[in-house]
Amino acid sequence: MKFVRFMYDSGVYTGVLAEQGIQAVEGDIFKDWQYTGRTFREGDVKLLAPLEANHIIGIGANFVAEKEDLPETAPELPVFFFKPTSSVIGPEASILIPKDINQVKFESEVAAVIGKKTHNISEDQVLDHIFGYTVGNDVTAPQYFHEDGHWTLGKAFDTFTPLGPYLETDLDPHNVSIKARLDNEEKQNSPTDLMIVSIEKMISYLSGVMTLEQGDVILTGSPVGAEMASAGSVIECEVNGIGVLRNKFVNK
Amino acid sequence: MKFVRFMYDSGVYTGVLAEQGIQAVEGDIFKDWQYTGRTFREGDVKLLAPLEANHIIGIGANFVAEKEDLPETAPELPVFFFKPTSSVIGPEASILIPKDINQVKFESEVAAVIGKKTHNISEDQVLDHIFGYTVGNDVTAPQYFHEDGHWTLGKAFDTFTPLGPYLETDLDPHNVSIKARLDNEEKQNSPTDLMIVSIEKMISYLSGVMTLEQGDVILTGSPVGAEMASAGSVIECEVNGIGVLRNKFVNK
Repeated sequence: MKFVRFMYDSGVYTGVLAEQGIQAVEGDIFKDWQYTGRTFREGDVKLLAPLEANHIIGIGANFVAEKEDLPETAPELPVFFFKPTSSVIGPEASILIPKDINQVKFESEVAAVIGKKTHNISEDQVLDHIFGYTVGNDVTAPQYFHEDGHWTLGKAFDTFTPLGPYLETDLDPHNVSIKARLDNEEKQNSPTDLMIVSIEKMISYLSGVMTLEQGDVILTGSPVGAEMASAGSVIECEVNGIGVLRNKFVNK
Repeated sequence: MKFVRFMYDSGVYTGVLAEQGIQAVEGDIFKDWQYTGRTFREGDVKLLAPLEANHIIGIGANFVAEKEDLPETAPELPVFFFKPTSSVIGPEASILIPKDINQVKFESEVAAVIGKKTHNISEDQVLDHIFGYTVGNDVTAPQYFHEDGHWTLGKAFDTFTPLGPYLETDLDPHNVSIKARLDNEEKQNSPTDLMIVSIEKMISYLSGVMTLEQGDVILTGSPVGAEMASAGSVIECEVNGIGVLRNKFVNK
């Protein structure tokens, strides 16, 4: 099932994507919701990020180019980072390149959305705590990385976390590929089995540190091929089974 | 005016500290609230963190020991970091030391609370956008710092961000000292004019990167003297004009 959030006539709605269009729902999509009976044509609405995220947590350098490159054991301490929820935008919204730089990096990712509050879960419990998946673009300005290694600022700018287009609740994350096309040219295309730290391992590890909450979004890492992009370019991030997340780079 | 959040008979309330006790209020303390007419004795309630934070943003290494050590110009790129809201606890709650380590670090700080959504403000507009101040303890497990410089995990554990006891709306942040006592022994005691990056400068800078929102908490840095602490110890963080934030370290 594909959940969407959208704007129509300056109202914000939630809905489910169906053959006949978007069927609006009311209530809490994580818990208890029902159809309102109203249907919208997708072309008539402006899609938003499919949820209001609680936290956004990313993992660094989590893909190899080929299966032979996978390390025998996952790193003891993965690199995690937070992005602020103020950085979230939806499909078709502009990614704003900060004034003093000319380029920013795109990174196409599977974004896992936590469905219920949880702490210290084992790897085999992880998928049961994921409500669904969307596509994420972990936009980054490496020019703002601190020389001592801190990524915070470089990942925190407004518009640096496009999410969408849909929140898919029926997806096997082990059976998808993550792609990115910059101006129609394929730049990233890797199956999730090239991840170094698996989705189960990273979320189990994180849950041992912090209580994960409904609406926490885990950006699970980006395949090789991410590049810098300039104003005017269009980036399409895609995960098969979810959809295509399309945004344009614009100078601020 | 000192706002408090507290629990009484398993209900959560907001109130204002007054001579005759805590006067409960209803509504949004940032915008529009009124007294309910109900008064509680402070000894009868359990104080909570004085707000539900939106983001928690810290700044690294922001104090010198003496005025002579202040650099002539602030660093071009300050070190900022995020802590998750799941790490927040209130006064008297236990700071849990993760199972595999024996000690964690305390850091007493002035925590500035953003009052309204804002983007790209100048230094002289900053204080007008701060709703109030509370005391923060930026608890840290440096054992979880990544060797490449990422602090995320070491600052993200549950219970690692005590806030409280009050949210003071009338405070001149340039006229206070930040103190910490570990088991009644003074460890930190510095006036805010030993900050390297001023509150105005750091929040103006941050607002140029990300839209700041109501309830964002900025931990403005900790004076020299922060130390590691073990289970059984009691840490009191104090900012004159706000109050004393007291927590005990406990093994998880």
